[in-house]
Amino acid sequence: MTPLNLDQLDAFSQLFSYAKNGLRLKDMMSVKRVKDFQAHTASLSYHFYGAKIDQNVLQLFQKLSEQSNLISRYKELTSGSLINKTENRAVLHHAVRSSSKTLYSDEFNRIKTFANGVHSGTITSSNGTPFKKVVQIGIGGSYLGPKSFLDALMPYAISRNDVKLKSDFISNIDPDSFYSYLHAESSVFNETLWIIVSKSGSTIETTENLNLLRAIADKKGIDISKNIVLVTQKKSRLEQETTCLNTFYIDENIGGRFSVTSAVGALIVSLVFSPTYMESILKGSREIDENSLNKNCLTNLAMLNALNSIWERNCLNYSYKAVIPYSEALNSFILHLQQTDCESNGKQVNQNGDFIPYQTGPMLVGSAGTNSQHSYFQKFHQGSDVCPVQFIGFKKTQIDISVEDPISDNFKRNHNLLNENLISQFFALTLGNQSRDPRKNFDGNRPCTLLICDQLNPETLGALLSFYENTIMFQGFLWNVNSFDQEGVELGKKLATSLGQLRKQSTSTYEGNTQTEKLLQKIYSESFNN
Amino acid sequence: MTPLNLDQLDAFSQLFSYAKNGLRLKDMMSVKRVKDFQAHTASLSYHFYGAKIDQNVLQLFQKLSEQSNLISRYKELTSGSLINKTENRAVLHHAVRSSSKTLYSDEFNRIKTFANGVHSGTITSSNGTPFKKVVQIGIGGSYLGPKSFLDALMPYAISRNDVKLKSDFISNIDPDSFYSYLHAESSVFNETLWIIVSKSGSTIETTENLNLLRAIADKKGIDISKNIVLVTQKKSRLEQETTCLNTFYIDENIGGRFSVTSAVGALIVSLVFSPTYMESILKGSREIDENSLNKNCLTNLAMLNALNSIWERNCLNYSYKAVIPYSEALNSFILHLQQTDCESNGKQVNQNGDFIPYQTGPMLVGSAGTNSQHSYFQKFHQGSDVCPVQFIGFKKTQIDISVEDPISDNFKRNHNLLNENLISQFFALTLGNQSRDPRKNFDGNRPCTLLICDQLNPETLGALLSFYENTIMFQGFLWNVNSFDQEGVELGKKLATSLGQLRKQSTSTYEGNTQTEKLLQKIYSESFNN
Repeated sequence: MTPLNLDQLDAFSQLFSYAKNGLRLKDMMSVKRVKDFQAHTASLSYHFYGAKIDQNVLQLFQKLSEQSNLISRYKELTSGSLINKTENRAVLHHAVRSSSKTLYSDEFNRIKTFANGVHSGTITSSNGTPFKKVVQIGIGGSYLGPKSFLDALMPYAISRNDVKLKSDFISNIDPDSFYSYLHAESSVFNETLWIIVSKSGSTIETTENLNLLRAIADKKGIDISKNIVLVTQKKSRLEQETTCLNTFYIDENIGGRFSVTSAVGALIVSLVFSPTYMESILKGSREIDENSLNKNCLTNLAMLNALNSIWERNCLNYSYKAVIPYSEALNSFILHLQQTDCESNGKQVNQNGDFIPYQTGPMLVGSAGTNSQHSYFQKFHQGSDVCPVQFIGFKKTQIDISVEDPISDNFKRNHNLLNENLISQFFALTLGNQSRDPRKNFDGNRPCTLLICDQLNPETLGALLSFYENTIMFQGFLWNVNSFDQEGVELGKKLATSLGQLRKQSTSTYEGNTQTEKLLQKIYSESFNN
Repeated sequence: MTPLNLDQLDAFSQLFSYAKNGLRLKDMMSVKRVKDFQAHTASLSYHFYGAKIDQNVLQLFQKLSEQSNLISRYKELTSGSLINKTENRAVLHHAVRSSSKTLYSDEFNRIKTFANGVHSGTITSSNGTPFKKVVQIGIGGSYLGPKSFLDALMPYAISRNDVKLKSDFISNIDPDSFYSYLHAESSVFNETLWIIVSKSGSTIETTENLNLLRAIADKKGIDISKNIVLVTQKKSRLEQETTCLNTFYIDENIGGRFSVTSAVGALIVSLVFSPTYMESILKGSREIDENSLNKNCLTNLAMLNALNSIWERNCLNYSYKAVIPYSEALNSFILHLQQTDCESNGKQVNQNGDFIPYQTGPMLVGSAGTNSQHSYFQKFHQGSDVCPVQFIGFKKTQIDISVEDPISDNFKRNHNLLNENLISQFFALTLGNQSRDPRKNFDGNRPCTLLICDQLNPETLGALLSFYENTIMFQGFLWNVNSFDQEGVELGKKLATSLGQLRKQSTSTYEGNTQTEKLLQKIYSESFNN
């Protein structure tokens, strides 16, 4: 099966032509449409009456999904074929949460045992006292995914007394950042468990921050090796060179940005909350992974979302899009999503290595409402170009309001206000409001979708993650790009290595040999040498 | 003086035509260009050799700045004319930091006295003990600006033992967020000073969070009025209805998103660090405000940046742009910048209220490097569209590395790596690298600029703020929009009020009268009622 480019598919050409009709949301919207244009799983409801689609578009979506063989390609992926051809690897992040999951259940069992040992106090810090805090050192997928999980579930866990350890992350190589962290938390340094995460074991930010940590521990006279655990690939340089308390493994077939349901996220979630939280996350992800097998695009939420985003990008020509959760706890989830989306589909060659003649991944932006309303929403309502918005809302708060008497009324009112604001923004963007004063006029017709969950809890978080991961996968299939490599980050790494080598060769004045090196040095020295 | 639309200016037409020549960075770049294409103030260096501009473009920039009367319009603004016509107000945020600053020096003196009183312990919390923490409740400009100042200076202040109080912000109406904050910080509740910031005094998020705070204090039996200070307009409803420790005033002629150098930011900066920090910030801002008066665009940094961004938006057709600081401490500064830029220039009518036939403010994205390299930079390097990047770099760390022996070498190496990465990304984006394998090919020719400071400290922070504020102002002049109103956020507020009223009228089933209300209710109940 050789996949075709998007513009070689008949259904896409038809969609492209149909877009010229200029569908208007105001003409289409009705109470009936609001009831009909929805799709559901146990955890998620996807409302698409605010998208610029009608029955004809939906039929073409179905046809496009078939012509692009979306379901069979998803099955090919989960079967373990080497579909990441550039890196000659399989793509196995779904296997971590599959019901059979024989491949990874042993590792998760080891994590459970370890977390339970830390919680019960049988595993202690180097000075023999229980761990009080866990800090993960990692960057990219080893940072944003796990951080988004902890942030998303923190209010839920706090209100249930489920937070077992304090937690933090160190990611950037910026020494000011590391220094501030240390100063603020110096009182728990001796009882901090450090999780060092790098799949390859050679990520420069992570290994240098580990070196910095070691230097600090040496200065304090602490045997840091007993406070360190690793998450890495088997036999990585990191594993071979690091004495530590324990090591948990990740598979080379799971890419960094898709690794949060592997040991990369499972260890810290199990330590900070409990292994049960992680099991519920996996359950929620599994629900959507299974829903994503559905051939009918009206009942396959991630596939429908992917088809709509292709329509918005390639037929309606929107170059960026927003995801706006009405929950502060999801702010870092959006950053994780931005990473996963842009790194996966910010490509311009197809699976054969040929240049693609159409637009691929748009820029993804977003942050929690209502704050975003007071920030960039002016532009979304009246800016000169259109940004489709996907809102995420929750019927219930994460905290159990009934126990919060006598202030429960305030909590309830604020949650109502939150959701009333969400719907009001949705309404204003999609339907607008005519005014004779152009300054106060709102054209509307700016498409939005809604993603509604009962509550932000471990299971719905897992479902949300998988919904977006699978959306990105289906988009990649449609654009015919390899969503699982990241060749675009390699050149910058190479150049940084060159600059570093030149620095070591000559400490006083930087000099280069090739034309590239000379120019690189010149720009560096004009910028940073006095 | 009736300002003209951008497309009515001869210099713009010439720029638009000239863009068709397709300037290529690789052809233009040279060691000479790297030396020549720079502009400096005492605090900032602006390097524009990575922008797609040549001497012809620079000459047209100068001509455009003159045809658009940029300097005289800036002078008209600072003179106090009612240039914000929609709201019939002047735009006076520059006056807060001007060398004459008679208008606001009294208020800043009151802030100094208050902050010194809190630090010395003469002003205490309601239980008679010194304040330990300050929490600002505000949203939009009352949140992101002040938060960006505290975050930006925290490592600097920590390393100099200048942090006098713990600090935090509550902005969102999301009750889960407020609840988590309270739980995490319940031990200092009695010694927390609450700054309630709302210019109008009727911002719903802020007044409802204040109500929630009062309810919690009542439950705890604390007289919270003695732990509250206000920052608001004179005679606002908030002032009239709130018993409190003290009130500081902001002028109605200073818009929320431009208010961080007024009492909105000055109070919390003075309390957490010291009034001296705020004075240095103002000094840095003043330096750029004065530089912005320069008629020569080659020496006026903000004006040059604005002209280049118009060129990139309206002639080269880039629909979003990024600002990437190589400092974790500037992450929230970028969010503040995003807010200020998008809310100011995300418009589509001109000063006369006529529809504008060209693109205005692009979407602004960004976050700290090197983290962003591991997130969305794949897309910046090889995505199907171009995102111009402005990098911000610092010659020195915020911390004084020499005192950090024996780990100073690690800190120094990491800071070198940070800046080497910055330059490598700049190089890869602008110049690229040819490869026969399309997957490993980097076209380059993706424009970037550099903003270099000696160190991220109070003075350079003030300079950076003013650089961006004035860039946004000049952009607004060029697009001929009113950068100081925000009509686009009004409709959503109105609709939310309608939904809230309908909720109060009928607690069981929501019902509406008008067609709009019925549909609004329907969407709300399909989403959030079970």
